[in-house]
Amino acid sequence: MSTDTNQEAREQLIDLAAEFYDQFEGGEIPSMSLPTRTKSNIEYDEEKGVWVYGDRTSRRSANSVRGAQKLLKAVYTIEFLADQLEEDRSSTLRELYYLSESWDNDNAQFNDQDESNQLIEDLEIVSEVTREDFHMRPEESGAKVMGPLHIREQTNRGERDIHCQLDVGQGGYQIPNNPDTIEFLDNDADFVLCVETGGMRDRLVENGFDADYDALIVHLGGQPARATRRLIRRLHDELELPVTVFADGDPWSYRIYGSVAYGSIKSAHLSEYLATPEAKYIGIQPADIVEYDLPTDPLSDSDINALESELSDPRFQTDYWEEQIELQLEIGKKAEQQSLAARGLDFVTDTYLPERLEAMGVL
Amino acid sequence: MSTDTNQEAREQLIDLAAEFYDQFEGGEIPSMSLPTRTKSNIEYDEEKGVWVYGDRTSRRSANSVRGAQKLLKAVYTIEFLADQLEEDRSSTLRELYYLSESWDNDNAQFNDQDESNQLIEDLEIVSEVTREDFHMRPEESGAKVMGPLHIREQTNRGERDIHCQLDVGQGGYQIPNNPDTIEFLDNDADFVLCVETGGMRDRLVENGFDADYDALIVHLGGQPARATRRLIRRLHDELELPVTVFADGDPWSYRIYGSVAYGSIKSAHLSEYLATPEAKYIGIQPADIVEYDLPTDPLSDSDINALESELSDPRFQTDYWEEQIELQLEIGKKAEQQSLAARGLDFVTDTYLPERLEAMGVL
Repeated sequence: MSTDTNQEAREQLIDLAAEFYDQFEGGEIPSMSLPTRTKSNIEYDEEKGVWVYGDRTSRRSANSVRGAQKLLKAVYTIEFLADQLEEDRSSTLRELYYLSESWDNDNAQFNDQDESNQLIEDLEIVSEVTREDFHMRPEESGAKVMGPLHIREQTNRGERDIHCQLDVGQGGYQIPNNPDTIEFLDNDADFVLCVETGGMRDRLVENGFDADYDALIVHLGGQPARATRRLIRRLHDELELPVTVFADGDPWSYRIYGSVAYGSIKSAHLSEYLATPEAKYIGIQPADIVEYDLPTDPLSDSDINALESELSDPRFQTDYWEEQIELQLEIGKKAEQQSLAARGLDFVTDTYLPERLEAMGVL
Repeated sequence: MSTDTNQEAREQLIDLAAEFYDQFEGGEIPSMSLPTRTKSNIEYDEEKGVWVYGDRTSRRSANSVRGAQKLLKAVYTIEFLADQLEEDRSSTLRELYYLSESWDNDNAQFNDQDESNQLIEDLEIVSEVTREDFHMRPEESGAKVMGPLHIREQTNRGERDIHCQLDVGQGGYQIPNNPDTIEFLDNDADFVLCVETGGMRDRLVENGFDADYDALIVHLGGQPARATRRLIRRLHDELELPVTVFADGDPWSYRIYGSVAYGSIKSAHLSEYLATPEAKYIGIQPADIVEYDLPTDPLSDSDINALESELSDPRFQTDYWEEQIELQLEIGKKAEQQSLAARGLDFVTDTYLPERLEAMGVL
């Protein structure tokens, strides 16, 4: 991690604490203002092409015991984070929660992990510094990359130059918790293909799809971690690669696509940093279920509810999604990406993906 | 994958089909005999030090429509696997299920994925060939290694030489689905440390524990995948490294230890291949909760039930486990491995692990 980024994040945090100090000095009751974090306060930012928080705010004030405790916890956490950055170290959200037990003021200790997680998100929003730049790690990263990309990663034991086909095993290159430690050296990639399931990721790698089509295969592993979404965004911005998402044909997978493309309500303050609005959905589309006559399962009640809720989700209010979701409700079926195997193990790489990528204008 | 292994697995499968053929020719109704797969038919094999199936068997016979269909499915699956090995390809369990839709005999098609998964397990048991040697991949592998180990992996695009500290990023080396494609070239390791959670794995890597103590840090990621257990077993057998398991202090984590050390009921036919009976449990032990005064949560009803069921599980009938489990039921508390952070972020690497490893005779 560059010392500059550490220094900048540290200053933003100390500015926050300084604000409380100034409020005290001016005889005011200290307080902190935050955007209201509900679905009704999410707006589409035309210019940036992502969903962001609207103008509604709520205020945390020390004018009650509860409010004062919240600000106290914030100050202790700011001190911990500032020290962590000074020492160029990092920790997990769970460690922060446990660590608070060692703080000298009982009132500053967290009651549960939700409270400390929430506070870190609040600090991200107010300071406009991301959790990664605070050096707070998630519990699991998980995702991996395979394809014609040569990177340099700054690890805590020095630089590592890694080619994501030639220098890795069948399992690929493991994305670190903070992908901003990666520098892109060189690449021969034509596009990014994000894949939901491990089984399909392994199929594409075995069939050599990344080599034949100069694709960067990024395994999402279900709902993608922030690190994965951040890397996808950087691949799009910095290498100008089209981004495509290949997932199961059900409402939960459309949400996975949605979190790659438009961000999530929980992290709307980070959409600009994590989301790739230009990402396109390859499939499985409901139209594919019909066209390729795929093996299916019937929609469950919760599938139907989820599809209906997507119809009213601002992120899915496009002609494409309305048509696909209505078709799916009509046929009452869903299909997994691995169901393409019913047409043979090579169908996905020889026929389905090339056809879809051509139709989408990526190939 | 070596062609020899493919050839051997293929022959074992064809022998199975040939047996049905001989039964037909001899005027017998074809049938297949399998060990009964229940807890009561699991025995401790003193010589091998692992739990294996006992002598009780059940017979699948074609003397009913249902039984005949089962054997038909087995024959179709054997043909598919034999072809797959001939072509040196692989597939997932889910792909097999979907692929059966393309088979010309409707009676051979699987009704659900449980059925095809079960059949693959049956074929493993009867043929004594592992699923990996059939080239059947799981959905997710997930685990990774960091430490002073230099390996050569045979990927489907050639050999890759990888040092698991010098040639990998912060995320480490991703274990492939079939770790028997790995050859151990060289190592400076003193022991293997298996770690349950990603957060703790990242802590140990950040603190340089693998470098300072010449440890191979293997991330388990919850209940470990077969690939991870197989690699651990090979590290123990071939490199003669002591294996230790570091997990949360609750009954579910003891089961994770149990699956590394003694195998599981589901895969008792593979214990000799997957389990490492010499693996030792580092902690979090119930005794640690008391000794280090760790932050805890109260045991839930399901925790208590799980602990009581462990007391009657043959795998946990040792003085050590009886003492620890009874202590835990008495104090009524559990603690996570990351709760060690309450003593500071370096406590685990500077104090806890060295003390425990010394007490266990590993350091």
